[in-house]
Amino acid sequence: MLVVYLLMNATIFITGGAGFIGSHLVDELLARGHRVISADNFALGRRENLAAALKNPRFTFRELDVNNLGATVAFLREQGQVDEVWHMAANSDIPAGVNNPDVDLNLTFLTTFNTLKMMRTLGIPRLVFASSSAIYGAHDGDLREDTGPLFPISNYGAMKLASEGCITAALESFLKQVWIFRFPNVIGGRATHGVIYDFLKKLRANPAELEVLGDGTQEKPYLHVTELVNAMLHIRDHGNQRLNYFNIASVKSAATVRFIAEAVVRTAAPGASIRYTGGSRGWVGDVPKFSYSIEKLQALGWLSKLTSQAAVERAIQENLHLAK
Amino acid sequence: MLVVYLLMNATIFITGGAGFIGSHLVDELLARGHRVISADNFALGRRENLAAALKNPRFTFRELDVNNLGATVAFLREQGQVDEVWHMAANSDIPAGVNNPDVDLNLTFLTTFNTLKMMRTLGIPRLVFASSSAIYGAHDGDLREDTGPLFPISNYGAMKLASEGCITAALESFLKQVWIFRFPNVIGGRATHGVIYDFLKKLRANPAELEVLGDGTQEKPYLHVTELVNAMLHIRDHGNQRLNYFNIASVKSAATVRFIAEAVVRTAAPGASIRYTGGSRGWVGDVPKFSYSIEKLQALGWLSKLTSQAAVERAIQENLHLAK
Repeated sequence: MLVVYLLMNATIFITGGAGFIGSHLVDELLARGHRVISADNFALGRRENLAAALKNPRFTFRELDVNNLGATVAFLREQGQVDEVWHMAANSDIPAGVNNPDVDLNLTFLTTFNTLKMMRTLGIPRLVFASSSAIYGAHDGDLREDTGPLFPISNYGAMKLASEGCITAALESFLKQVWIFRFPNVIGGRATHGVIYDFLKKLRANPAELEVLGDGTQEKPYLHVTELVNAMLHIRDHGNQRLNYFNIASVKSAATVRFIAEAVVRTAAPGASIRYTGGSRGWVGDVPKFSYSIEKLQALGWLSKLTSQAAVERAIQENLHLAK
Repeated sequence: MLVVYLLMNATIFITGGAGFIGSHLVDELLARGHRVISADNFALGRRENLAAALKNPRFTFRELDVNNLGATVAFLREQGQVDEVWHMAANSDIPAGVNNPDVDLNLTFLTTFNTLKMMRTLGIPRLVFASSSAIYGAHDGDLREDTGPLFPISNYGAMKLASEGCITAALESFLKQVWIFRFPNVIGGRATHGVIYDFLKKLRANPAELEVLGDGTQEKPYLHVTELVNAMLHIRDHGNQRLNYFNIASVKSAATVRFIAEAVVRTAAPGASIRYTGGSRGWVGDVPKFSYSIEKLQALGWLSKLTSQAAVERAIQENLHLAK
């Protein structure tokens, strides 16, 4: 018999809760009536992302680096029993980790490693983990959840893969249930990185011309952060295996860099020219083109409402202040 | 045009050169005329494994932890140009890493992470890496090099997978060529762990009865260390892709725990009884049964001479002193 732990009136600890995705998750879990505890070291997170949450009596926040195991355990002991952990803390600046591998070692992998130690210490049985399409590396064809081999081309991808591995090893040893989500490119308000963010910042610096790395043909699936959060909660509630692992993406659709560049210029700086630097890859560690299989997610009953292109258009609106 | 770097009169740095597999590799590379430089922290390695090598003027050894990046870089700068690195240093005691994840973090993963940093610092272009069947986790059917998903069930497997990921990320960034070998269970003289080692030690403690964890039906491929070294050098010389990755195992054959227990008793303590504790798994983190596809290795022209069972018989002879 499999006991199903539905997420109702739960006490949930979220690492990286002040980050781009983490803070949207905090907001939604609070809206659904849970008690939410969170920590963030503000490496990428920002207190203002939690402006609404901090007014909610069901929310507790501490500025804390989860790599400080002793401090995290002490903080959580003060809070009473935690039902499950959503581990969202990570680096999200892939080029930063290519230049300095310590970034992803510390922020992307050791946060997972120490979160697992904390869960073992406190006896917290269930873990939800934000993994990434970057674990797959460069593959032809649709990326399925069972695609192999897994040869990531960035330290970010390697450290997400390492995190998945330690989590499945922990499931063999002391965890009871795990949900792993492999995110596509996630966009929307509060983003701290990514192509839309970069393009808007570039237009602020030079409103006359947008320089685009590569030739513009790079093509990837994009998902709006509100849909991502919605999908995560759907999988958490409907994925009842011991080990649940899902690609998350919008209904089969992708946006090219050219589409994004043109949409950004049209919205933020009409009339600006676009200059492509050429070449099929934008930067070291970048997977130039990938397509995600979301059959498994569809079979679980979740479908996005926005295409990649519609998500891009919405995210540009939400980040327009970056160009000003 | 692909330039092929044949391994002739090369200067090779071997991490973990005093270990079980590392020391056999040192011996063989010296026999083939190379200059061999090695470091070992003696976590598992032993100076006596290098007794013959230390008499060879083409061999240089330093007691050193490769996680001490500064010391390793300084040591290698003293030695002149290194052509390639064979990274063999790792934990090999899987249960130790289940009990304390820091063991595999430090010995299995961070040694790789720091070896990559060292190679980037010194501009060494080629890396040969000892990976493991443990990256695959529990799968039905033959494990092929492109099998997915990869959900290791031990921290050892997770940290080997993490190592592979950082290596492929480095290949995208600064390495020029990589060979990854996924080892099966490797047996033979100088072993420090494993089922044969354990059984012989148990018989020394109690020559009347051999206690066997599990029900004896666990079945795995075994390879003798001399054949492993031979296979690695074959792949190094004939695998000419930028990224070469191969399962290494004996021709399709496996030995059950029952076969090994009976062979050990027959050889080391005839007349001793065998008692099975029952259950299909021996210990947490153990993959109870697996079968390796070696089609890729065969296509490259390498075949083992010993079956798993013959390798077991030979390894028992070579380790008989453990029972005395």
